[in-house]
Amino acid sequence: MNETSPSSTATSTVLHRVPFYETDAMGVVHHSNYVRYLELARIRWMDEHHRPYREYIAEDRHFATTRVEVDYKRVTRFDEEISIRCWLEWVRGASLRLAYRLDTSEGMVAIAATEHALVDSNGRVRRIPAADREQLKSGVEKRGR
Amino acid sequence: MNETSPSSTATSTVLHRVPFYETDAMGVVHHSNYVRYLELARIRWMDEHHRPYREYIAEDRHFATTRVEVDYKRVTRFDEEISIRCWLEWVRGASLRLAYRLDTSEGMVAIAATEHALVDSNGRVRRIPAADREQLKSGVEKRGR
Amino acid sequence: MNETSPSSTATSTVLHRVPFYETDAMGVVHHSNYVRYLELARIRWMDEHHRPYREYIAEDRHFATTRVEVDYKRVTRFDEEISIRCWLEWVRGASLRLAYRLDTSEGMVAIAATEHALVDSNGRVRRIPAADREQLKSGVEKRGR
Amino acid sequence: MNETSPSSTATSTVLHRVPFYETDAMGVVHHSNYVRYLELARIRWMDEHHRPYREYIAEDRHFATTRVEVDYKRVTRFDEEISIRCWLEWVRGASLRLAYRLDTSEGMVAIAATEHALVDSNGRVRRIPAADREQLKSGVEKRGR
Repeated sequence: MNETSPSSTATSTVLHRVPFYETDAMGVVHHSNYVRYLELARIRWMDEHHRPYREYIAEDRHFATTRVEVDYKRVTRFDEEISIRCWLEWVRGASLRLAYRLDTSEGMVAIAATEHALVDSNGRVRRIPAADREQLKSGVEKRGR
Repeated sequence: MNETSPSSTATSTVLHRVPFYETDAMGVVHHSNYVRYLELARIRWMDEHHRPYREYIAEDRHFATTRVEVDYKRVTRFDEEISIRCWLEWVRGASLRLAYRLDTSEGMVAIAATEHALVDSNGRVRRIPAADREQLKSGVEKRGR
Repeated sequence: MNETSPSSTATSTVLHRVPFYETDAMGVVHHSNYVRYLELARIRWMDEHHRPYREYIAEDRHFATTRVEVDYKRVTRFDEEISIRCWLEWVRGASLRLAYRLDTSEGMVAIAATEHALVDSNGRVRRIPAADREQLKSGVEKRGR
Repeated sequence: MNETSPSSTATSTVLHRVPFYETDAMGVVHHSNYVRYLELARIRWMDEHHRPYREYIAEDRHFATTRVEVDYKRVTRFDEEISIRCWLEWVRGASLRLAYRLDTSEGMVAIAATEHALVDSNGRVRRIPAADREQLKSGVEKRGR
């Protein structure tokens, strides 16, 4: 994963104030919750830079998660505000990859990436419609990856 | 809720060893998780004393939860083993009520109750089939409630 | 629980947009998540009408949950916005009770109540400091309960 | 990640029957839950091949998670039984890496890996005690990684 943040690409940011129920007995947010925070950010990203995920669902299409990677840099605690920034890394015929950076006012919390395949409710892989794919590609970072 | 345990009724018990991810920053299991433990126990209860819940699902029937009550008596911590005991309190035309008692070797952790309505996947209330209802009634506690 | 909403008391409202990860295979928010939503609302209530919960934590005081009741009226789905309103029902020497009403634009989703005891990190019950208790009492609904 | 399973190393396996509350509105287990399943397996691995994690906690030591990777191969559903197998990939002065393979009777569900740093409750990195490290090394796969 590339730790730097995107310079010239469409990003979305969600702010999340840590609820007590996401902390664990180490006194910090349990690491599994960050995987959920990524979902908050990519739903927002679709709202802002593509089209609402609920439209895909209404068409019986789901972006099934096929890979998750998270590198944890710093713990967070109850009541801290985390920003989760999301951007698109690539899009292919039936799949795409999103990247994420999580921060608090104290510094970087984590970097992450997720990959997704478009499937129908029977789990069959389906091509991303050409118009959607073109629109998505226009949001991919332009730095030569 | 009746704090005593059932004397002459069909009960089921699930054992659950507390994972770290169910603890919170007070160092104990977050109270919301006990609501999930109740589900583990009633699924087991259906397996052992009625019929598997997955059969209902296959028939497009779900026992939607309409009420939850939990009285918390004692905290539990990572790696403790909790027993969750479940029994049926009553059954009506389209609904039923289950009771629960949670314990560790240290003593009573909580008592609880849940009420459920049978619905289809459109959320419409459906009568519990007569044969199922009769079978369920035979499992209700016999203490004159 | 009193289904009507408070007329002349201090309330706080949190808005929560349903993430996909809080839905279940019935296609709706799993009922256990509403217990977590209550926590979001009471943390906000403390911020707005009492003092921040993180101050209690810093003083080694926690409002341990001793009772939860939820009556579910209507299901909610991915991407719906739920408002969770919270107000104080009563306060005693070492405990208090909060009430809640959850709504979407479609109507009432649930009513709920939680009871809490003030404890230290050893789990010992501690009196609510007199000044805090008086301030809390001033926020209790004035309708003769 | 190496998709093959370990041939000559100490592994532990946990069986987990999918609760309804871990499913999502796609009708399958939400991908974030697998990150939690990994924890179940590594706690078991420590019990069986090292020493109980609760001993570390009692000594104010925690294996903070510094990286998670999961490759998802197949969805799972309510009531399916998942086996989660865990083994140690490497151990260093203050960190270690575990690998995982998840299966149902239908086939492989996911492969995964987690990395952990030993920290105290202030978050300071601490060396793994030499005796523990030696014992851990003896459990590392012998295939030349």
